[in-house]
Amino acid sequence: MLRDSAVQPLLTDYYQFTMAYAYWKCGREERNAVFELYFRENPLGGEFTIFAGLQDCLLFISKFQFTEEDVNFLQSVLPPTTEQGFYDYLRNMDTSTVTLRAVPEGSVVFSKVAMLEIEGPLPILQILETPLLTLVNYASLVATNAARFRLAAGPEKRLLELGLRRAQGPDGGVSASKYSYIGGFDGTSNVLAGKLYGIPLFGSMAHSYIASFTSMSEVKVQQTLKPASEGQAAVDFVSLCEMWLVRVCCLLQVPQDHTNSSELAAFVSYAMTYPGNFIALVDTYSVMRSGVPNFCAVSLALHEMGYKTHGLRLDSGDLVQQSLKIRITLQACAKEFGVSWFSEIPIIISNGVSEKDLINLQNQRNEVDSIGVGTNLVTCPLQPSLGCVYKLTQVCGKPRIKLTEDREKMTLPGKKTVCRLYGLDGSPFLDLLMLSDEPAPKAGEEIQCHALNGKAESLRVTAARVEALHRVYYQHGRLSQSLCTTSEIKRHALNSLNNLHPKHKHLQNPVPYQVAMSLKLRDLLNDLTKESKTIAHSPE
Amino acid sequence: MLRDSAVQPLLTDYYQFTMAYAYWKCGREERNAVFELYFRENPLGGEFTIFAGLQDCLLFISKFQFTEEDVNFLQSVLPPTTEQGFYDYLRNMDTSTVTLRAVPEGSVVFSKVAMLEIEGPLPILQILETPLLTLVNYASLVATNAARFRLAAGPEKRLLELGLRRAQGPDGGVSASKYSYIGGFDGTSNVLAGKLYGIPLFGSMAHSYIASFTSMSEVKVQQTLKPASEGQAAVDFVSLCEMWLVRVCCLLQVPQDHTNSSELAAFVSYAMTYPGNFIALVDTYSVMRSGVPNFCAVSLALHEMGYKTHGLRLDSGDLVQQSLKIRITLQACAKEFGVSWFSEIPIIISNGVSEKDLINLQNQRNEVDSIGVGTNLVTCPLQPSLGCVYKLTQVCGKPRIKLTEDREKMTLPGKKTVCRLYGLDGSPFLDLLMLSDEPAPKAGEEIQCHALNGKAESLRVTAARVEALHRVYYQHGRLSQSLCTTSEIKRHALNSLNNLHPKHKHLQNPVPYQVAMSLKLRDLLNDLTKESKTIAHSPE
Repeated sequence: MLRDSAVQPLLTDYYQFTMAYAYWKCGREERNAVFELYFRENPLGGEFTIFAGLQDCLLFISKFQFTEEDVNFLQSVLPPTTEQGFYDYLRNMDTSTVTLRAVPEGSVVFSKVAMLEIEGPLPILQILETPLLTLVNYASLVATNAARFRLAAGPEKRLLELGLRRAQGPDGGVSASKYSYIGGFDGTSNVLAGKLYGIPLFGSMAHSYIASFTSMSEVKVQQTLKPASEGQAAVDFVSLCEMWLVRVCCLLQVPQDHTNSSELAAFVSYAMTYPGNFIALVDTYSVMRSGVPNFCAVSLALHEMGYKTHGLRLDSGDLVQQSLKIRITLQACAKEFGVSWFSEIPIIISNGVSEKDLINLQNQRNEVDSIGVGTNLVTCPLQPSLGCVYKLTQVCGKPRIKLTEDREKMTLPGKKTVCRLYGLDGSPFLDLLMLSDEPAPKAGEEIQCHALNGKAESLRVTAARVEALHRVYYQHGRLSQSLCTTSEIKRHALNSLNNLHPKHKHLQNPVPYQVAMSLKLRDLLNDLTKESKTIAHSPE
Repeated sequence: MLRDSAVQPLLTDYYQFTMAYAYWKCGREERNAVFELYFRENPLGGEFTIFAGLQDCLLFISKFQFTEEDVNFLQSVLPPTTEQGFYDYLRNMDTSTVTLRAVPEGSVVFSKVAMLEIEGPLPILQILETPLLTLVNYASLVATNAARFRLAAGPEKRLLELGLRRAQGPDGGVSASKYSYIGGFDGTSNVLAGKLYGIPLFGSMAHSYIASFTSMSEVKVQQTLKPASEGQAAVDFVSLCEMWLVRVCCLLQVPQDHTNSSELAAFVSYAMTYPGNFIALVDTYSVMRSGVPNFCAVSLALHEMGYKTHGLRLDSGDLVQQSLKIRITLQACAKEFGVSWFSEIPIIISNGVSEKDLINLQNQRNEVDSIGVGTNLVTCPLQPSLGCVYKLTQVCGKPRIKLTEDREKMTLPGKKTVCRLYGLDGSPFLDLLMLSDEPAPKAGEEIQCHALNGKAESLRVTAARVEALHRVYYQHGRLSQSLCTTSEIKRHALNSLNNLHPKHKHLQNPVPYQVAMSLKLRDLLNDLTKESKTIAHSPE
């Protein structure tokens, strides 16, 4: 497992240890606390988020244990007055008294609703804060970004993630591949991610491959290819391609001396290597005067030998306009040479593709079949951080609140449950935050609650179905359910997103999904706010 | 070493293997090639970049070897027609015939100048492409971002990196901490990065720590503290703090019932835990009516017992204005109570601090001593990717070029050397790209060259000193020099940046640094461009 080395108990903020020591030193290390992990605003201008990273959190928590080396390191960096007993306490620290409840990974979630709620001794939960945030923040952001790319592209286009080289380092790249797949991509170029998570792999050739050839003489050493059908004699494939180039240039009215012979050599060589999997990059030189004629010539030669071409890739220029021109050329070849599949050769595009490019693509005629996305997917430039927070809601059974002058940063007190309310159409329409001792609303019964977003208005709603959003995933030192595979999470994400009403999924100006609190929670919030504002310093 | 598990030979794009097979299959696997790794534009609107990630590249290359498990996985994903001999070739693949030259890590570098040049068999260099890009791209970007934060803050402020929870996953967070330190930060909150790279650690308490207290009764269990001097009897510290709060409130004219007693409890508890390292977060409730009075009371109590407070932290609101008000309060306490160090207690700020905030800070009166930066440092929102490329420049001794309709994406042909030319003031003023067989220009002799940036004008320049920019770091399967430590690289980055003329370091509208090519390189470029445009398909 890749994550083992990076995700370890020391992957946390220093202040978690100074605070843990303060709790321990003052005899507060057994205090039971509840923290919630949530975000304040949906990312990327949207009104939904895909919750991801839970399996990584569970793996981390279930293996959580300081090594002697860890403890020795902490001894070297904490103030020398720190007592030895604290280090023994760390040596024996485990998560057997920690309970983790969460929304199932891949679910659609909304702002201010806890994706994850964790209960246990205060110092342990404090040390877990940073790694849990680190594991959820980027995973959820990139899964959401990928889901938006999928919505922008529509369900038909094939989406390929190519961002490894532009990600935040090696593990950032692997996370990007995994969570883009979960969010709605079809494959990746990242071989390690393919191996670790079973993600379909994709790729053919780079410009450097084509540039590495200097002339046709390079492919004349070993110029024969066996036809696809068994038992037939090998054919002089190089000459066959050259013959086809003459015919293609004639049809397309391209002067043959405009086609680049080193590009042809590269295509021929690749085709001889993978005759049944030929895909070519056609924009190293002129697309229409060299790349496409060379591609057609090699593909027609392959056809003559019983092979079918898999596609061509465009990586520069006006990708949409070129796709139209290329389709016309492919159709012309199909007709002229009687090769019907030729008109349907997949056209793959890449080169800085953004969400906006995909929206534009949906709004104009194009002949693009597959889209490779790198930088704009993995670095989430529109909003490079989800900004999850991890807030204390209860200590020793007492609800806690953080009041600040910044209303947005105020927390909601108390240990809670969350019910998702579904309408008659089967779509969820409201997430209801309640105190954990409140009974869940019943289907068909009208309830009163208090909206969280915008103006804090009073609402009356009736659900056709009510779902408890959180499940227990970790308790008594054990996973309560088996870990999900990447493809299970991907499936759940797809279902969860499909089930959400389209109005919340618009990429621009979506309708906010309603999040509300129960009247009891609202009353507690009001009481604590008042109390805190008038609280007296009690000198006894 | 953290990186071991993530950085492995499979951490590459799938097409590197399909291309490698094509090279192998056509007998081209021994072809000697040269690739350059560079970026096309300096990031973040600046005119310099800090080159980082080299040691990670060297570690990776020096351990490069496929495992049997890797090869088995590749067999399962490459087309079934792939010959067994190729897998044997991969099993035996190593980097003993690879030579890596590079600019020393931490150096200031500029667009289109190779940070790294690698020579060796074509398929190996192809497989190395993605991991090298992944290791250099983010490292250099975040080091450059950190250097810009340092320039914006000025040399006096203490800069602390707090971004782990907002980074691209666990390893993204560790990379961020390491390369921010190299780029000019003074410390990090990331304990694992502190352990791995010897970075000073920083942190005290979070809002949750304060919110976990409910009243002063919680600190009355164990309320004594021993004075700093040996042999003195323990004192009732809780009562001492309460006494000081009365005096402070009186001085500051704050009604004592406006101060929050649970906040005071938290401060008292932390002070009793770390009396010699007290730092408090003062904005959980009202800063001026609760946080600061409570902080002053506890700090004065500590002073009475012989301890000195380390600082206070502000995490919300108008940080600059508050720093001024707080300084006045601290000075008032210093004067009233005769505690001279009180007026110099460090004020630490955090909360979404950006480069722009630091520029504004430099331009207005403030009393800020230390600044914590998270999201805006580690995610580089102004430009989340450096966009490094890895381009073929030579195959079998023949210079190669990539010509596209996009001029910016054109490559410069041939294996090169780079000389950095220094002026009489000791600052570099021009990087000269030359073909590798050209002699370096001599100090004091005028040379003619051709500017790369802007209009391609002819230049005549004379250097006071000439430096060969690249060094050999890896050859014959061995590191040519020992790996640098993080602090050595940090020192080099500081020197390299200090040595650069200020006009190139302006954060807004800097003067571009001159990059030029030798006349011989210019001629080669012109010849290849012409040749490629008129190249004929040679049917023999």
